[in-house]
Amino acid sequence: MLPEKELMALSVKTESKIVLLIMDGVGGLPVNGKTELATAKKPNLDKLAQSSIGGLTDPISLGITPGSGPSHLAIFGYDPLRYEIGRGILEAAGIGFELTNRDLAARGNFATMDDKEIITDRRAGRIATEKNQQICAELQEKIKKIDDVEVFIRPGKEHRFVIIFRGDGLNGPLTDADPQKEGLHIKFTEASSPESKKASEIVNKFIREANVILKSHHPANTILLRGIAKVPHIPSMEELFKLKPACIATYPMYKGLASLVGMKILKTGDTIADEFRTLKENWNDHDFFYLHIKKTDSYGEDGNFANKVHIIEELDQNLPQLMELNPAVIAVTGDHSTPALMKGHSWHPNPFILHSQWERHDNLKSFSEDECARGLLGRFPACDAMQLMLANALKLNKFGA
Amino acid sequence: MLPEKELMALSVKTESKIVLLIMDGVGGLPVNGKTELATAKKPNLDKLAQSSIGGLTDPISLGITPGSGPSHLAIFGYDPLRYEIGRGILEAAGIGFELTNRDLAARGNFATMDDKEIITDRRAGRIATEKNQQICAELQEKIKKIDDVEVFIRPGKEHRFVIIFRGDGLNGPLTDADPQKEGLHIKFTEASSPESKKASEIVNKFIREANVILKSHHPANTILLRGIAKVPHIPSMEELFKLKPACIATYPMYKGLASLVGMKILKTGDTIADEFRTLKENWNDHDFFYLHIKKTDSYGEDGNFANKVHIIEELDQNLPQLMELNPAVIAVTGDHSTPALMKGHSWHPNPFILHSQWERHDNLKSFSEDECARGLLGRFPACDAMQLMLANALKLNKFGA
Repeated sequence: MLPEKELMALSVKTESKIVLLIMDGVGGLPVNGKTELATAKKPNLDKLAQSSIGGLTDPISLGITPGSGPSHLAIFGYDPLRYEIGRGILEAAGIGFELTNRDLAARGNFATMDDKEIITDRRAGRIATEKNQQICAELQEKIKKIDDVEVFIRPGKEHRFVIIFRGDGLNGPLTDADPQKEGLHIKFTEASSPESKKASEIVNKFIREANVILKSHHPANTILLRGIAKVPHIPSMEELFKLKPACIATYPMYKGLASLVGMKILKTGDTIADEFRTLKENWNDHDFFYLHIKKTDSYGEDGNFANKVHIIEELDQNLPQLMELNPAVIAVTGDHSTPALMKGHSWHPNPFILHSQWERHDNLKSFSEDECARGLLGRFPACDAMQLMLANALKLNKFGA
Repeated sequence: MLPEKELMALSVKTESKIVLLIMDGVGGLPVNGKTELATAKKPNLDKLAQSSIGGLTDPISLGITPGSGPSHLAIFGYDPLRYEIGRGILEAAGIGFELTNRDLAARGNFATMDDKEIITDRRAGRIATEKNQQICAELQEKIKKIDDVEVFIRPGKEHRFVIIFRGDGLNGPLTDADPQKEGLHIKFTEASSPESKKASEIVNKFIREANVILKSHHPANTILLRGIAKVPHIPSMEELFKLKPACIATYPMYKGLASLVGMKILKTGDTIADEFRTLKENWNDHDFFYLHIKKTDSYGEDGNFANKVHIIEELDQNLPQLMELNPAVIAVTGDHSTPALMKGHSWHPNPFILHSQWERHDNLKSFSEDECARGLLGRFPACDAMQLMLANALKLNKFGA
């Protein structure tokens, strides 16, 4: 991709509309000779592929399996190696917490220590989620601020929680306040640079205060904090590409990721049909729509090949509603692959199709990994896809004279 | 591509000859199912393709539409993001002005200002070209030098002109001496760094002197200068690749671009046949020939599909003359695409074929975008093509032991 500064200089605002349809983890591996995508009956997607140009995208680099953060940044047109999203930030985004640029976030575990402050259980016996919620409520009640810094504590599942520190001059990253192994002494965080000194002092004060409060909550009598980092400064899609972008997603983490790049988060329901309805209702108000289908990934993670196929088929039935809106550009792809066979994210490239009146004719028969591998776009870095979408929507000026 | 230093270390001088045949803007988009290239009857090019290896090249990056400057630099083996050619330099090259490395050039407009020095017409009512020529002649007559700096003024069409400042210590880039909008006060240029202070002072002195002379030439009573920059320091193809390169082109801008990378500009006539005759006549004196066909681009810009097809056919009839010379390497490609359908440059990748006895066998049926997309070379950055040409001419040593 072009350096951001160059790309900013080339991008122009126009009326044309782009829809980026992400089927999370849609790429797969064959079972009985066919991947999930090749197995699904999806006449509408196949028809779209027949009038599209195809290719395969690598989210990060050959053989590299991405998390949801970097793989989404790439497909949004950002260099995923340049912008690192700390685990704490991603978790906070994941529970729908509205982050500001004064926030530092960390992922937390409740843990057990003995009277010599040696960690004996890094997960506090996997306490019940309800117990977690009670403890978090008590901590929040008793610790609202550390010095001039606001503290927000949000429970997750079992022993997990997220903590957000909001104040001026909080810089990261900080080292983990976690010895990583049982049998070791509890650990405090350290500043990685002079700029992060204040943040490290605030976080350590919090740990000490929490340890006092948690004395009575054995086995959850201490905390471990990891991935302590600030909201990264990511230029918005409006700054970079002069877009007015919107996000339609059902899961909080994807809304969080979208909000980090400045998308408006549209309210929608739980089903794919709801998401397409939301697209139609908001059609006039934006020029870029990111529509996220979560369950292809969830069923991939579960190893449930058949249900992943069904989700693709369910999406397919809703596709005509998108086609009726007649966007200048439709791109359909995954953020990364999640083969049911592997029960997890994988490094396999994503099938990618782009529909626009300005592309050369491809000869794709259907939307699948194999067909896209033969497409005219070839294999390319996922972060280049945004340039291609903008070009096809005639939103980029000429480079150089 | 390899870093220049590495490439310099690998390149060796040999007797073998390379011909790079650029059909400007040859890549297209289909009309009635076929692009210009797929429509043209071109038995010689197709035969060449059948004994070549094919691929598609991206001049800059996916989706980025290049100007002629960066797209040519790329195909000459230069990183187009590294060497920026200012608008003034390109214009000067475009009118065939022989630039030296002491030159700073700018693109100029004659404009109208009122008695408060407010710009009321940025184009001076689009004065006639003849009037422009008269005014430029008068300015040139009255201003030959500013301090120790020579000044060359050359008229363009209507209100446009080019100005070249030649002297020691002239560095750019400078900000535009142009308020960009009507209704604003005339503007002087500013130095972007201490090194460009002298240049800014010279340019501003020129503007003041010109304004005095132009008082009697209303509506052309002031000037606006843009793209004020120095000839970029580009290492020559001889330095980098140990080539003795020659340019055969009919249009001044391409000769100018070629001279910026140190090519000898060969005198030729106006027709494609003239260009091939020039190639034959100079065959013994050079080991790299850049042969440029302009009109594929011109007709593309005009939206004239049929005439673009005819130019490809005309070139095809001349191709046997090139084949008779039996170069070690023939590469045929475009610098960028100019689909007649889009009436302008586009981002679509360039069909590329390379003929050499040292390549693997491809199965191309003809020279077209689709066939090249299936070629063994795949899709690659245009600036890598030079390495491939040099390799096939056995002009590159092994990298590392």
